[in-house]
Amino acid sequence: MANVTKKRIAIIGAGPSGLSQLIAFKQAEQEQRVELVCFERQAEWGGLWQYTALVGTYSCGEPIHSSMYRQLWSNGPKELLEYADYSFEQHFGRSITSYPPRAILYDYIIGRAAAADVRKFIHFRTTVRHVDFDDNTQQFHVTVQDLLANELQKDLIFDHVIVATGHYTIPNMPDFEGLSTFPGRVLHSHDYRGADEFVGKNLLIIGGSYSAEDIAIQCYKFGAGSITISYRSCPMAFKWPEAIKEVPLLQRIDGHTAYFKDGTSVDNIDCVILCTGYRHNHSYMAEPLRFQCTSNLYIPNNLYKGIFWSAEPRLAYLGMQNQLYTLNMFDIQAALVRDVFLDTVKLPDDDDKKRQEDIAKWQAREKTLSPEDHEGFSDLQTDYLDDVTSCCDQNTVPKFDLQRVNAGFYKFFHDKKENLITYRDQTFTSIFPPFKEASTSKIQWINNKDDSIQGYLASITTA
Amino acid sequence: MANVTKKRIAIIGAGPSGLSQLIAFKQAEQEQRVELVCFERQAEWGGLWQYTALVGTYSCGEPIHSSMYRQLWSNGPKELLEYADYSFEQHFGRSITSYPPRAILYDYIIGRAAAADVRKFIHFRTTVRHVDFDDNTQQFHVTVQDLLANELQKDLIFDHVIVATGHYTIPNMPDFEGLSTFPGRVLHSHDYRGADEFVGKNLLIIGGSYSAEDIAIQCYKFGAGSITISYRSCPMAFKWPEAIKEVPLLQRIDGHTAYFKDGTSVDNIDCVILCTGYRHNHSYMAEPLRFQCTSNLYIPNNLYKGIFWSAEPRLAYLGMQNQLYTLNMFDIQAALVRDVFLDTVKLPDDDDKKRQEDIAKWQAREKTLSPEDHEGFSDLQTDYLDDVTSCCDQNTVPKFDLQRVNAGFYKFFHDKKENLITYRDQTFTSIFPPFKEASTSKIQWINNKDDSIQGYLASITTA
Repeated sequence: MANVTKKRIAIIGAGPSGLSQLIAFKQAEQEQRVELVCFERQAEWGGLWQYTALVGTYSCGEPIHSSMYRQLWSNGPKELLEYADYSFEQHFGRSITSYPPRAILYDYIIGRAAAADVRKFIHFRTTVRHVDFDDNTQQFHVTVQDLLANELQKDLIFDHVIVATGHYTIPNMPDFEGLSTFPGRVLHSHDYRGADEFVGKNLLIIGGSYSAEDIAIQCYKFGAGSITISYRSCPMAFKWPEAIKEVPLLQRIDGHTAYFKDGTSVDNIDCVILCTGYRHNHSYMAEPLRFQCTSNLYIPNNLYKGIFWSAEPRLAYLGMQNQLYTLNMFDIQAALVRDVFLDTVKLPDDDDKKRQEDIAKWQAREKTLSPEDHEGFSDLQTDYLDDVTSCCDQNTVPKFDLQRVNAGFYKFFHDKKENLITYRDQTFTSIFPPFKEASTSKIQWINNKDDSIQGYLASITTA
Repeated sequence: MANVTKKRIAIIGAGPSGLSQLIAFKQAEQEQRVELVCFERQAEWGGLWQYTALVGTYSCGEPIHSSMYRQLWSNGPKELLEYADYSFEQHFGRSITSYPPRAILYDYIIGRAAAADVRKFIHFRTTVRHVDFDDNTQQFHVTVQDLLANELQKDLIFDHVIVATGHYTIPNMPDFEGLSTFPGRVLHSHDYRGADEFVGKNLLIIGGSYSAEDIAIQCYKFGAGSITISYRSCPMAFKWPEAIKEVPLLQRIDGHTAYFKDGTSVDNIDCVILCTGYRHNHSYMAEPLRFQCTSNLYIPNNLYKGIFWSAEPRLAYLGMQNQLYTLNMFDIQAALVRDVFLDTVKLPDDDDKKRQEDIAKWQAREKTLSPEDHEGFSDLQTDYLDDVTSCCDQNTVPKFDLQRVNAGFYKFFHDKKENLITYRDQTFTSIFPPFKEASTSKIQWINNKDDSIQGYLASITTA
């Protein structure tokens, strides 16, 4: 066998996107065309879908990765993220609802990875400290740290590096006058672990996106006293229950009183929850290879086809965009990465300048969209994935009816706007033939406080 | 001037120990004998004495350094840590009590540094990424990251490196069965910010040392429901108030019930606070230079005179030992570092083997002490500092009557054993002539809930 041509591939992260990549490469690995090494700093796979009650920093000095909380239920219908090669029904042996709790999604994601037998490629408790590219050898040098033995392994050599770290771990922490001396609890949504701690409390939530909306509704569900949501640019303007109100941006906090941009104030704030988003942090990448992004974009800078580092396309980044599409997007991206790295297909643009022009074209379209145009962003990400799919080897790319997914997002936006409390009780049809409708639950989401796998499965209405 | 002989000195950290070092070198800097560069990752000086309500990770990905909490009052008498060249009375313009709150200590520490005009040497928001030693040039190479610009500066060259990072930031996080799925709040004392969040709650505190004791008493003071303290090896055995009890080590948690080693259990636990200490973390040091320590010791491994890296004594570590002595110890250590690095004095042992023998001799003494022999550890650290002092240039070493400090520690241990609630109401005499007695407060500590500088100063009884 021509062992010398075997390509060495490093994948950073064994969360959903890294697992998609391992699975995409699996056949080539069996054919001895690639050698796969996946570095994962956590002790288990599944990335941010793992729940832990712990917050802060591990003893090794690494930040605790997960931003998951108890009672997190999917905030998007499962039909719009289902894998093409592994269905929820296949995994659970039965039909489930459209909005399952966290434990179900985690079980599904790692269930597929276990079935594909890719765990053996993962080096757990191993964090990547440095990635550089050697112009002479045209290979990547990767330095990793074994977090248990606290040992560095320097200059591991790879032909390709794929960054699949996610970008929902390092909190974006804006400063507000008086916040660091607020005489109550201040936490970022990254460290939010459950609503039960806030029963009867008056909460100030800062943010205007998914985290703010979901944490507000969770705290309402479990009995928070009052919830004030402070937005930077525009209110989410859902039909909020009476206990929740939206106000403009926080200007300062003095004692337990918060003052807002419109001159109003709220007294007796017990707790401030910063739902102010996350930051990309790839400080372990040498500067010429480092993807940097201050605000989350659907079409990020310098990533050709949203994936390949334009200046050096032997390096790929998965899932770095703002995400409406998730698991299915990772599978499509991973397919193109595989096809390109195995030379099955060629990238349409063969130099940096042309690649940057392609990125600029897509970015121009994103710039035309106003922040509240959810349908516009869904159209954009749908067309983007259609473009990525068209670049892939058509014999092996996972096939999704993207227009059907897009229509699903439209319905999802409509359901939420209609009623934020009941949108998780709605059902969707599968995007795969025979387009079966999801099951319903015997318990409305707002009353359903059991998010265990067992409890959830027992709550499903059997047809 | 012979500029070529000017030694370049890097100090890592601008907390209490780093500031002691800057002040120790100040005169030599004015005489153009050294060039001082201090790297500090926080935005301000004072190390862990800075309070912030924030927990977790900064946007730059660095862990939030401080472990301070609201309502932290000194847990040792100020007389036993007072600087020889800068008194509390000089700083505040009046006599104060023996146990001031955090803000007073912070103000005092940075007050001396401001008076010494050393701020100009500090590069704030700059974290050290790598330190290595070049055997050819016999110099250190230091790589730092500007956290605001997110830029690396590689291979800065220094003749000496002094590590003054502290070691109360990276939590020691032991695992217990069921802890990561505990359905309530779990936090490490590093992330504890105040007792008001725990009013009426049933707390499980895990730990058997200063953090466990102080957080238990703070939560008691502010009205926690019940407090169970779980110890690993031996109970602290203070005369606890009725709401606090000590139990053996936690075996597992199931729901809200905690099970202990002696077969007992406690139901309805709302919150688990891990007061399980901190870990040394110097992963930025190249392995041959890296101080590693799994348990905190009064006589740490590989540090000659508790300071100099035995294998390469051009590298120093300040304050890495378990600390009874604090600010005064840093000043004595910093004096010896200065004297040795400026060739004013020679280290008594000139090769690694002899230095290791000296370390081993001191460690043998530490090993004879049982964990609860507080007086024995105080004697040990007193004798240790006496030894360091004797190595210094006697004309410039800060002079402390160490036997008087040691006697103070004996009284401190006695006061605490006598009554944990009232020990902070006791007064000590200064260790410096004319040995003045501290002021008293109009309000007993247990009833004093105002820890602001203003409120504290107003509460002092005027003679």
